[in-house]
Amino acid sequence: MHAARLLALDWGTSSLRAHLLGEGGALLAERQQPWGIMHLPEGGFDAALHGIAGDWLSPGLPIIASGMVGSAQGWREAPYVDLPAGADTLAQSLTAFDVGDGLKLHIVPGVRHARPDVMRGEETQCIGALALMPALAPSSTLLLPGTHCKWLRVEAGRIADFQTFMTGELYALLAEHSILGRPARAAFRLGDVAAPEAFDRGVAAVRAQGAGGASELLFTTRALVLAGRLNAADSLEYLSGLLVGEELRCALGTVDVRAAPLALIGDAALCQRYRRALALWQVLDVPAVEAAAPVGLWSIATRANLVTAR
Amino acid sequence: MHAARLLALDWGTSSLRAHLLGEGGALLAERQQPWGIMHLPEGGFDAALHGIAGDWLSPGLPIIASGMVGSAQGWREAPYVDLPAGADTLAQSLTAFDVGDGLKLHIVPGVRHARPDVMRGEETQCIGALALMPALAPSSTLLLPGTHCKWLRVEAGRIADFQTFMTGELYALLAEHSILGRPARAAFRLGDVAAPEAFDRGVAAVRAQGAGGASELLFTTRALVLAGRLNAADSLEYLSGLLVGEELRCALGTVDVRAAPLALIGDAALCQRYRRALALWQVLDVPAVEAAAPVGLWSIATRANLVTAR
Repeated sequence: MHAARLLALDWGTSSLRAHLLGEGGALLAERQQPWGIMHLPEGGFDAALHGIAGDWLSPGLPIIASGMVGSAQGWREAPYVDLPAGADTLAQSLTAFDVGDGLKLHIVPGVRHARPDVMRGEETQCIGALALMPALAPSSTLLLPGTHCKWLRVEAGRIADFQTFMTGELYALLAEHSILGRPARAAFRLGDVAAPEAFDRGVAAVRAQGAGGASELLFTTRALVLAGRLNAADSLEYLSGLLVGEELRCALGTVDVRAAPLALIGDAALCQRYRRALALWQVLDVPAVEAAAPVGLWSIATRANLVTAR
Repeated sequence: MHAARLLALDWGTSSLRAHLLGEGGALLAERQQPWGIMHLPEGGFDAALHGIAGDWLSPGLPIIASGMVGSAQGWREAPYVDLPAGADTLAQSLTAFDVGDGLKLHIVPGVRHARPDVMRGEETQCIGALALMPALAPSSTLLLPGTHCKWLRVEAGRIADFQTFMTGELYALLAEHSILGRPARAAFRLGDVAAPEAFDRGVAAVRAQGAGGASELLFTTRALVLAGRLNAADSLEYLSGLLVGEELRCALGTVDVRAAPLALIGDAALCQRYRRALALWQVLDVPAVEAAAPVGLWSIATRANLVTAR
């Protein structure tokens, strides 16, 4: 059995992922629970930590966490750092506190933008992605799809700029609660692209729409079904296409993916959905990185001297 | 007591309004119930009709209705008519059927656009507004704010073009269910503009944003509150400003309100909200029309010879 060197927690709003890392950041074991900060078990943060990793804990094992656990609603608020932010910036600004039994938890700060904009967790995934794909470090654009999609611009190994799109949350709201979701609601959950033609059609419609974008097209999700020109069962794929298309319309209007090549970070099915949409914008061969969070947490922990890099 | 000449029903998804009209279309009485087609009382459409107007009904009294009552989920489907559509077009395409006791119900058709787009009810309000303000008939733009906002272009007294924006439904979804609504959700209901500075700030932000529009700004509703730059209690007014601003950004990008002057139709508080936003676009002195539906129903009924115009 390899010796455990670091307990790395990716602790968001809706889930908690624990990674036990050994020498050199090697993944020894990992577990997941639905114990996001808004869905804690009885006993709160402390119970969640011991519930997911109690048998891994030993005095002196450093613990590091990123995500909403550092928000005002989290275990302890970890103040935001400003741009530009690299692994060193994050490592110098950890919020550390004792959690009992000789254990110390170190929370990675979120990053804020003067626009204003904020993120918590994505900064750590970014650091992980740069460690996994060093070619991205000099200059790149990182796209992290999800409830609140983030576009990060990396310059000289640091996060230089970022922007949030609420694409995932808008999709969930419209699919679950709006008139647009009604025809297909019972049957449909977003995952792999189940109806590629309908998805592509939504993306292409936004691309062809000009400056107005998806605002002028949302209601066509209903009107096309009423007109018999879109299968009810496929209509949520069309809607997903409109929303992902709108995000690309806006982001690619200001981002030069030739100067700063694009990479995707996140869930494989969601990345594949974005890759499909990007292809309609002639942005091709975009690499994707999964499981970047534990790598980022290891990288930050080494810079903070919680562990040694070797 | 004046003799009743027409029972005019404005029958939508969430409410039923009954207007008893006399000689020349004079309003004799009106009632409202929350019996929209998705919220019918026990006994369905028939019970709703007798519940709201049973004591008004007498054999031979013509009944006319507009709105979602003519949809596939309504009492009887009234097929759409195509553009351009004026009062004569609508009057020639009524769907009539017996509802018992010597009574006949005539449903005004909805209108469809090849884009595709559809409406049911707004066409009748448009006909009413043209009767109330004849100066709008040659060439005008009618804006009907609501759950699904409609922009109608009128040429030579007929509806020549229209477009739907889901502004009202998006606002309700984001305020009630999204992370953006959380700080102010308990306290806030959209009505009169309660925090004009926050509303104007949202509109102005979209106007200043350029082609990206509200998609790039939605998350600032949260980020501004987190940064202490927007009161949580005012944040839904800011969000409303973003969404109304997005509608204006798109619509005013294609509509020339000098060539086809703008008028508002609908609820007074909602029209005032739009008037405020339009002023930030330098579109000033926009007239507003309330209670256009019964006037439109009378106008269509006279053209269909259900009643005589005198």
